[in-house]
Amino acid sequence: MNWWLEACKTPSAEAKQAAEARQLQLTKPTGSLSELERTAVLLASLQNTAQPNIHKPWITIFAGDHGVMAENISAYPQAVTRQMLQNFTSGGACISVIAKEYNASLQVIDCGSVGDAYEYAGVERRCIMQGTANFKIQAAMTEEQCMQALELGRQSADKALANSASIYVAGEMGIGNTCSASAVACLLLNQPAEQLTGVGTGIRAEQLEHKKQVIDQALQLHKAYAQNDAFKILCAVGGLEIAAMAGAYIRCAQIGLPIVVDGFISTVSALAAVRMNPRVRDWMLFGHQSAEYGHRSLLNELQAEPLLKLNLRLGEGSGAGAALGLIKLACSLHNHMATFAEAAVIGDKV
Amino acid sequence: MNWWLEACKTPSAEAKQAAEARQLQLTKPTGSLSELERTAVLLASLQNTAQPNIHKPWITIFAGDHGVMAENISAYPQAVTRQMLQNFTSGGACISVIAKEYNASLQVIDCGSVGDAYEYAGVERRCIMQGTANFKIQAAMTEEQCMQALELGRQSADKALANSASIYVAGEMGIGNTCSASAVACLLLNQPAEQLTGVGTGIRAEQLEHKKQVIDQALQLHKAYAQNDAFKILCAVGGLEIAAMAGAYIRCAQIGLPIVVDGFISTVSALAAVRMNPRVRDWMLFGHQSAEYGHRSLLNELQAEPLLKLNLRLGEGSGAGAALGLIKLACSLHNHMATFAEAAVIGDKV
Repeated sequence: MNWWLEACKTPSAEAKQAAEARQLQLTKPTGSLSELERTAVLLASLQNTAQPNIHKPWITIFAGDHGVMAENISAYPQAVTRQMLQNFTSGGACISVIAKEYNASLQVIDCGSVGDAYEYAGVERRCIMQGTANFKIQAAMTEEQCMQALELGRQSADKALANSASIYVAGEMGIGNTCSASAVACLLLNQPAEQLTGVGTGIRAEQLEHKKQVIDQALQLHKAYAQNDAFKILCAVGGLEIAAMAGAYIRCAQIGLPIVVDGFISTVSALAAVRMNPRVRDWMLFGHQSAEYGHRSLLNELQAEPLLKLNLRLGEGSGAGAALGLIKLACSLHNHMATFAEAAVIGDKV
Repeated sequence: MNWWLEACKTPSAEAKQAAEARQLQLTKPTGSLSELERTAVLLASLQNTAQPNIHKPWITIFAGDHGVMAENISAYPQAVTRQMLQNFTSGGACISVIAKEYNASLQVIDCGSVGDAYEYAGVERRCIMQGTANFKIQAAMTEEQCMQALELGRQSADKALANSASIYVAGEMGIGNTCSASAVACLLLNQPAEQLTGVGTGIRAEQLEHKKQVIDQALQLHKAYAQNDAFKILCAVGGLEIAAMAGAYIRCAQIGLPIVVDGFISTVSALAAVRMNPRVRDWMLFGHQSAEYGHRSLLNELQAEPLLKLNLRLGEGSGAGAALGLIKLACSLHNHMATFAEAAVIGDKV
C-alpha cells in the first residue's frame, strides 16, 4: 500500500465541544466573532487542546520548473525560479518577510529547477529532475518521479512536526506553474481550460487564450491515462512542487499537524491530496482567496471559505502566511478574553 | 467658526509617488500584493514617509447609553454598558486582547452612561449626561451636548498625537447604539429604516421589525429640523459615543493622524464626519465589513473597501483592531522586501 493511503488522525470532538462551550461564555454577543470563533474552535479540535496556539508556524516553499514553459505560457523567464530561491533564504521575498513577522520557520526545497548544480545557503537542493517534461506532448513526470515529489512533501511535514511546529504552510515557486495547476484542476474537476485558467503573474489577453489552448490540448492527450485518478493526474500534467505540496498535506493529516492552504496552486495540491485521501480535508484551514481565475471553483469543491480576500496573486504561500496573523489573533481571543462570570457582565439576553 | 470646519492636513503626493515607485521594484509580479500594496502606499502618503509603520497604534473606546432603550430595541440590558467599561480596562474584552496583541494604547472614555458616579480604574469618566434622551420622542442631545461629545473626540485625537501614535482606531460601547446609528444613517442617506437597520447584537425578527418602526417614527419627528445637516442629525438621533467618534475622526484629519474605521456604528460616525468636513475622508483606512445589515451601503457612500470581511458584529473597534495586523504586515512588506536589483532577480516580463 502506498503511504499516502494510510489513515489520517481524527480531530478531537471533545476539544471542539469544550472550545465551543468556552466561546459561548466569553464577554461578547453570541457568535459575534464569527470566523475568528470558528478558526479557534477548529484549531482547538486539531491541536486537541483547550488553548489552541500557533506559537511555532512552519512554512515550506517547494520550487520546481516546468517543461510547458516551452509553449510560451508565462510572463516571466524561467531563470526567475532559481533567482527567487536565493531571495527566499536571504530574506528579501514576500514570504521571507511574512515568516519573520510571524516568527515562522522557513524551509526552502528545490524539487527540480532547471540548470546546473549549485550551493545556495539555506536552500535544500533535492532536484528530482531539471524541470518537468512538457505536458503538452508527454507526461510531466513518470510515476516514480511523482512518488519522489510526494515523498519530499512527506519528509517536510515530518520535519516540521519534529521541530514542534504548531501549524504548517506550504507555498510554491515555479515560473509557469499556474499553467500546470490549471491543467491538474481541469482533470480533477472534469472541466475545460476555459473554466479554470487565469492570467497567473500577469500575461496579456492573447497569451491567456494561447495558454488555454495548450492546456486543452494536454487534457486531450492525457485524459484516457489520468481518468479521475489524482495521482495519475499529477504525473500527467502536474509539477514537482505541486505534487510535493500534496504529499506534505497528506502527511500533515496523518501526523496531526494543522494546515493553512494558500492560493490557487496550493489549493490544486490540496484538492489532489483530498482526492488521494479524503480525510486530509479535516486538517485544512484556508488562508486567502486569490485573484487567480478558477480559485473560487476549487474552494467550492472543497467547501472552503478563506479568512482573507485581498486579491493577492503572488504565490509563495503569501496568502496563507498573511492569514497567520488572524489565526494567531483568533487563538489569543479564545484564550484570553474574560468570561461573563469572570468579568461580572450580564451574558443573558433580555 | 466651529473647530470641526477647520482645514484638514493634505496627504503627501510625493511620498505616495515614491511609495508606488518602490512597490514596482519589489521582487514580485507587478501589483500582485494588491490591497496590501495599496495600504502601504496610502499610509506612506498619510505619514509622509518612505517607511510607513504602525509601531504605536492608538485605540479609544467611547461609551454612552441611549434613551431609546426605553423602546425595547436591544437584546441586552443597559447595565452591560457600564459592566463592559470595567472589562475593557481589566483586559478581558475583545478589544483589550487585540490592543495587547498589537501593542496598542487603549483609552476608555465614558461619554455618558446611565447610573451614579463611580471610579473604575483606567476609565475616564467624562459623562455629558446619563445617556441620551429617547429620540423617538425628543432630540437625543441638545446642540451644546453634541458639541461637548465632539470635543471629547477632539481631545482624544490630540492626546493620541501627543503620545506619538502612528494610527488611530475609534471603537464604541453602548447597549442600543445600532438603533441610534441606523437612525443617523437614514437621515444622512435619506433612506427609510428598512434599508439601514439590522439585528445588532442579535435581536429576533419581530423585535427587528419593531426597531425599524421606532426609527421610522423618529425620522418623521426629526427630519424637518435635521435636514441633511450632519451636526443636527447627530443631535437629533445620535449617541454621545457616535458624536465623539465623529469628532475624533475630524481632529485626526486636521492633525494628520491616519484613521482605521471599524464597523457599522463607526462607519456612521465616519460618514457624519465626512459630511461635516469632506477632506476627513482622505485620512481613513477601513478595517472590516461587518455582518450588520446596512454597513455595505455606508461603505459604498464612502467609496470604501475594507481589508477584512469576517462577519464580525461585536463593535468595540474590534474589526479595525483585527485589521491592524494586516496593516502592520503591509508596512513590513513595503519596507523590508528586496528590490529586483538588490536580489538580482529579473523584474522585466518576457
